[in-house]
Amino acid sequence: MSIFEGLLSTPQAVRAFEPDSFVAAMLRFEAALARAQGATGLIPAPAAALIVRVCAPANFDAAQIMRDSARAGSVAIPLVQALKAQVGRSDPQAVAWVHFGSTSQDAIDTAAALCSAPLLSQLEGDTRQAAGVLIGHAQAHAATPMLARTLMQPASVTSFGLKCAQWAAPLVRSLQRLAALRAAALAVQLGGAAGTQAQLRGQGPDLVRRMAQELGLGTPAVPWHTQRDAWVALACEIGVLVGSLGKIARDLSLLGQYEVGEVTEPTEPGRGGSSAMPHKRNPVACMVALAAAQRAPHRVAAMLGAMPQEHERGLGGWQAELAEWSGLLMSAHGSACAMAQALPGLQVDVQRMRANLDRLGAEVPPDIQREWFDPVLAQPASTMAVFQAEALARQLDTIDAGALNNELEGA
Amino acid sequence: MSIFEGLLSTPQAVRAFEPDSFVAAMLRFEAALARAQGATGLIPAPAAALIVRVCAPANFDAAQIMRDSARAGSVAIPLVQALKAQVGRSDPQAVAWVHFGSTSQDAIDTAAALCSAPLLSQLEGDTRQAAGVLIGHAQAHAATPMLARTLMQPASVTSFGLKCAQWAAPLVRSLQRLAALRAAALAVQLGGAAGTQAQLRGQGPDLVRRMAQELGLGTPAVPWHTQRDAWVALACEIGVLVGSLGKIARDLSLLGQYEVGEVTEPTEPGRGGSSAMPHKRNPVACMVALAAAQRAPHRVAAMLGAMPQEHERGLGGWQAELAEWSGLLMSAHGSACAMAQALPGLQVDVQRMRANLDRLGAEVPPDIQREWFDPVLAQPASTMAVFQAEALARQLDTIDAGALNNELEGA
Amino acid sequence: MSIFEGLLSTPQAVRAFEPDSFVAAMLRFEAALARAQGATGLIPAPAAALIVRVCAPANFDAAQIMRDSARAGSVAIPLVQALKAQVGRSDPQAVAWVHFGSTSQDAIDTAAALCSAPLLSQLEGDTRQAAGVLIGHAQAHAATPMLARTLMQPASVTSFGLKCAQWAAPLVRSLQRLAALRAAALAVQLGGAAGTQAQLRGQGPDLVRRMAQELGLGTPAVPWHTQRDAWVALACEIGVLVGSLGKIARDLSLLGQYEVGEVTEPTEPGRGGSSAMPHKRNPVACMVALAAAQRAPHRVAAMLGAMPQEHERGLGGWQAELAEWSGLLMSAHGSACAMAQALPGLQVDVQRMRANLDRLGAEVPPDIQREWFDPVLAQPASTMAVFQAEALARQLDTIDAGALNNELEGA
Amino acid sequence: MSIFEGLLSTPQAVRAFEPDSFVAAMLRFEAALARAQGATGLIPAPAAALIVRVCAPANFDAAQIMRDSARAGSVAIPLVQALKAQVGRSDPQAVAWVHFGSTSQDAIDTAAALCSAPLLSQLEGDTRQAAGVLIGHAQAHAATPMLARTLMQPASVTSFGLKCAQWAAPLVRSLQRLAALRAAALAVQLGGAAGTQAQLRGQGPDLVRRMAQELGLGTPAVPWHTQRDAWVALACEIGVLVGSLGKIARDLSLLGQYEVGEVTEPTEPGRGGSSAMPHKRNPVACMVALAAAQRAPHRVAAMLGAMPQEHERGLGGWQAELAEWSGLLMSAHGSACAMAQALPGLQVDVQRMRANLDRLGAEVPPDIQREWFDPVLAQPASTMAVFQAEALARQLDTIDAGALNNELEGA
Repeated sequence: MSIFEGLLSTPQAVRAFEPDSFVAAMLRFEAALARAQGATGLIPAPAAALIVRVCAPANFDAAQIMRDSARAGSVAIPLVQALKAQVGRSDPQAVAWVHFGSTSQDAIDTAAALCSAPLLSQLEGDTRQAAGVLIGHAQAHAATPMLARTLMQPASVTSFGLKCAQWAAPLVRSLQRLAALRAAALAVQLGGAAGTQAQLRGQGPDLVRRMAQELGLGTPAVPWHTQRDAWVALACEIGVLVGSLGKIARDLSLLGQYEVGEVTEPTEPGRGGSSAMPHKRNPVACMVALAAAQRAPHRVAAMLGAMPQEHERGLGGWQAELAEWSGLLMSAHGSACAMAQALPGLQVDVQRMRANLDRLGAEVPPDIQREWFDPVLAQPASTMAVFQAEALARQLDTIDAGALNNELEGA
Repeated sequence: MSIFEGLLSTPQAVRAFEPDSFVAAMLRFEAALARAQGATGLIPAPAAALIVRVCAPANFDAAQIMRDSARAGSVAIPLVQALKAQVGRSDPQAVAWVHFGSTSQDAIDTAAALCSAPLLSQLEGDTRQAAGVLIGHAQAHAATPMLARTLMQPASVTSFGLKCAQWAAPLVRSLQRLAALRAAALAVQLGGAAGTQAQLRGQGPDLVRRMAQELGLGTPAVPWHTQRDAWVALACEIGVLVGSLGKIARDLSLLGQYEVGEVTEPTEPGRGGSSAMPHKRNPVACMVALAAAQRAPHRVAAMLGAMPQEHERGLGGWQAELAEWSGLLMSAHGSACAMAQALPGLQVDVQRMRANLDRLGAEVPPDIQREWFDPVLAQPASTMAVFQAEALARQLDTIDAGALNNELEGA
Repeated sequence: MSIFEGLLSTPQAVRAFEPDSFVAAMLRFEAALARAQGATGLIPAPAAALIVRVCAPANFDAAQIMRDSARAGSVAIPLVQALKAQVGRSDPQAVAWVHFGSTSQDAIDTAAALCSAPLLSQLEGDTRQAAGVLIGHAQAHAATPMLARTLMQPASVTSFGLKCAQWAAPLVRSLQRLAALRAAALAVQLGGAAGTQAQLRGQGPDLVRRMAQELGLGTPAVPWHTQRDAWVALACEIGVLVGSLGKIARDLSLLGQYEVGEVTEPTEPGRGGSSAMPHKRNPVACMVALAAAQRAPHRVAAMLGAMPQEHERGLGGWQAELAEWSGLLMSAHGSACAMAQALPGLQVDVQRMRANLDRLGAEVPPDIQREWFDPVLAQPASTMAVFQAEALARQLDTIDAGALNNELEGA
Repeated sequence: MSIFEGLLSTPQAVRAFEPDSFVAAMLRFEAALARAQGATGLIPAPAAALIVRVCAPANFDAAQIMRDSARAGSVAIPLVQALKAQVGRSDPQAVAWVHFGSTSQDAIDTAAALCSAPLLSQLEGDTRQAAGVLIGHAQAHAATPMLARTLMQPASVTSFGLKCAQWAAPLVRSLQRLAALRAAALAVQLGGAAGTQAQLRGQGPDLVRRMAQELGLGTPAVPWHTQRDAWVALACEIGVLVGSLGKIARDLSLLGQYEVGEVTEPTEPGRGGSSAMPHKRNPVACMVALAAAQRAPHRVAAMLGAMPQEHERGLGGWQAELAEWSGLLMSAHGSACAMAQALPGLQVDVQRMRANLDRLGAEVPPDIQREWFDPVLAQPASTMAVFQAEALARQLDTIDAGALNNELEGA
């Protein structure tokens, strides 16, 4: 991994698709497949038990599998070969039941969903955290007047609370959309060589259901080898979320300019310093969120662009899509985590907000001041902020309740 | 408009955002605003009536408004100026009530929604048409064996019916997602200069409701000047749809190669000819859909990238977003229309499918043939195709019923 | 054309690829082809003369050609048909010599180069203008101290002159790179149906040379139907130029904020006003350049993404590329024109620069002030600005001389 | 690093920007800076010698530096802190001369150039290898007739040699463009906190020259902290190269389809196998090159989009750019290496080419066959192929000579 991903993402996201994590996830797929097939009698129970037992990450050399993957053209092929070899050492008859009726894309797509699930939970958690904090700011500062700025010029008066409510609203909406999209996208893949479940003797749907339950994934109606819409739609929404977080960071970076000085990121030792200037405090959370907002759209575009995958398994497009997906999650994680950490400690300079407003008011003709820059104009903004904050808080509660239910069901 | 948009889109989509169409839509906004404000008493009823009367497209020179927009930096400003001038000629007192409490972005965002609504209906209609036809093919050819191909090489056997069902499924899912996203995105914008509805004396929500009803648009909780997530999420889904259509076109273009010869686009006089070669028939519907699939991801990325819009109205980002949106709709329209027209007349060469399969079967060892290339392997594909086609048909009916209800309600 | 392109581009760029302009350019190709073939004796001289005579734009209905293009899948096919029909009315024997040995892509690629050439000249002219003005500012303000800002925070001292020189340098480098890339890219296309010049009896290179001279285009070694690298490389450099212009606009929009107030766009009646706020002056040149900087990267990406065009003529990718190219030029034109118009009249507030610097200096400890924020620190910036401005002025002279020579040669 | 980068890139490229590689490169910068400053007397010679001595990668914990970078907002800051700490242990007085007059961006941009240089050499080497092989195929198969295909349909006749020459030509042109762009882009960065070299007492240019010589990098006229055009222009050309390689892969993947069977990738044990199907041979080199062609445009777009970096150092844009750059090189490396390995062993089935042509010729009317599908039509293609192959071979020799000279000069 490049050092820049380390700078701009989180350790969790960086690790999620590293060879050992991904190999472990593919082994979870192979074990779940064998267990399900053993349970339905599609393969002999002892073979299933053996395969499940062998499918322990410690038995496999992930680095070697990655090296072999380039020649094989697939990260699953060397894994399956190694798995067969190990199973064969215990029981040569069982080798035929390894990866039975499956194809490398089944293992890889399912593993990608498995690696993604905890990242999405963390992403949603950080987003909930950020939204909740902003709703609090919205309520606390509902009536705090500040300049409204349009096209980078002072326009009139708003309130900082309304600004916070408006920052929060898209996060809450993203959480709502993500809940539905994630359930559809993070699904078991099981199609076999041609996507027809031909070797599964009509047990395909049953096996998928069993595997989905074991792995905590969704149950698709049919295999989706080259039907990537649910997956890409989820990526799109993550891209939207990164854009909404980037909007917050853009505003914060503008408000934190020395000459504006209205809101600044929290500071702490070692955070945002300069290699040359001891007096400097850089807004590093904004930096991370803005970098993500620059990068994520291109990850989404690459995934959209890779959708026309040929026939029953794509050549190049599918592989590109998975690589872009992991990059997208890295950027999104960096952004949401940075904002979740920075927003609680925002330093809001209410007096500076007022001073900037008053200074402009004193420079324009009195009638302009009264019509456009009177601090009392924050009143309608305040009403709107309170109204919106309450609505968002309710929606967030509903989402949290849903998430809790899901966790209880999952437990 | 470039001649290439004419080639790759539809006349309806090309026209939708042309100056005269867009000016007419802005006038619908101004009229609805005045009517609502007159009804609630926010502005004098006679002034409202006058404004509504003047807001007829024939009274305005759209080309001149577009020319003036470059200097003004907004397409609404010259329109509002012209509107005020015309109103003033009848009643100078009424000028103050033109565009009252509103801002140029209110007019522009609402007009963009108005111009988009019929395009989306047409897009959804074409997609429904394409999906319905594919479901029919899926049923008719459920048991038709053909080579399944992965990584551009023969893998095993599938059925043409399953292929059609798999082509249809993402279209149906897009229709489902679009229904929700569209309702949230195509909404009235009414925030005033600072997005606070400051001049509307607390009537903002009521005015928005009235305008939404008149204009057939959604009612947002609060203004969304720089909260673009709902709008961009809709764009994303359109991008996903274009990708799914592009996948169909990719497969068709591969199946239609001379050496494969399994499925070809319908031919008719003047369609897909060559300037040099009288014998040539080019798959022009695939061409349009593939071109769209190349272009749309970049429209989506540009919209995502423009999301971090500064403060209460962005400088550059917002304007870029709207321009990209119209480009996205043009590409999507071209693609969906081309597929809706081409899919009903697909020429399916069942014998060629069988011949390609049999030829390969004869070239591989008999055990490989039996395991991977026996035409009976189409049986599980057939079951899956029938199952999926039925499910999709039901879902499509549900969508159609919903659309019908919406139209009835809208009437 | 969407009203937003009108807002964000120039009339010249918007018109360049409209149906009538493009049809006229294709007719120039057909005429040049016939004239060259008549001169070498490949086709009968009277037929050539007749074809040349008929190839007048007034003889053709561009709108009809565009409408027919969608069905034909090519904008050249209906044009060639109409041309043949008209030639046939005068001399049925001559019809066979229309478009002889050529293919629709020959006409279209050459027409695209013809439509692009004047746009590039204008783009380069605007860029030269902007660079020259900035070099002047660099010299005039070489020693004007101002805050240097890194990561959106004050870092130390620079001079406004150095800032201007640094803005100018990438423009000059782009002009240097454009000169070479343009010569390679804007070339005649003549390959015939298979790109082999099969019907041209070995005269291909001679015909290309003759046509290139007549049309003012380059002479490629061989046809480049699916070798798009020179063309895309030119697009890339235009993308780089738009990025460099966007950087200027980004800085200007930041410097022009009310709270910073160091540099503002020139104002004039009707420019940058607001539909609601009489006191407002929006930086519309920055808006246009920033919108272009948001959009152009996606045009470039789309062209790069379309490069893997199939075999001897692509399906979808080629058509997408040309549409994106025209969009790229529209954005680039808007940006360069806006900057060329705005930069000469920049309002530079030297006292405000000093005041912002002094205010910060007074807030930090004295040793920090002396080390980082003393106005004398502008001295090395001044030296650098003078040095760089002189070098850039020399380079610009060289470019201008080259351009002048080209024009003289072309005359 | 994600496992997918391992699949789609090369070990060398994956490693180049990993924390330990990048930290080592930053240490080379710090050592070269100290050495130059010691030589000119800007800092005391003993301090310089000490700093140089300490700057050994083994003295630093790259993983820790990466972890600290997220909080610092820069990968250089923790490195400089660790360097100061270690120098201070030997000589507290020397600490003040560590990183003297420099800024974190100086270290990072220079390190990025250092990490990139060998990757570019390898990339150019692979590209030369691929081009050379294709020129050989062009000569060997100049007269081999095959179907020319346009819009995915048979058009007429070309020769396989011409196809190879046309594949080679863009690679040779990319090498020519890369040579110039690389020299301009891979340059020392040395600007100090404000980009003015304020602490370097007028020695900036001299120091840069000395450092450039030691590090084998270019000497920019002035610092380029937020003038990214040379760097991005190099990225663009790499994007173009990936597109040209992708075009080859697209054609190969089409020619290698079972039903076409004209050209296939070389096979070897373990290469391109299937996890399920023993008979399958997947074109994995094409897969890698096509995946790169899907991804690289988005890396380029992200870099272009990040160009408007604020003031003297960007917030988010610069950091995003570097991360995208490393991703671009990974994709490009994967593609060029895959093609360099696959092209020498291409399996060209001349009889199948002829058979496909003859079969079509037999299906069309005789006059059409004579005019469009007669194998003798390969004759002009052959002439063109020979002509072009000779020209390309000469150009490649010139490039090789230039590269050799550069290496000799560098030695």
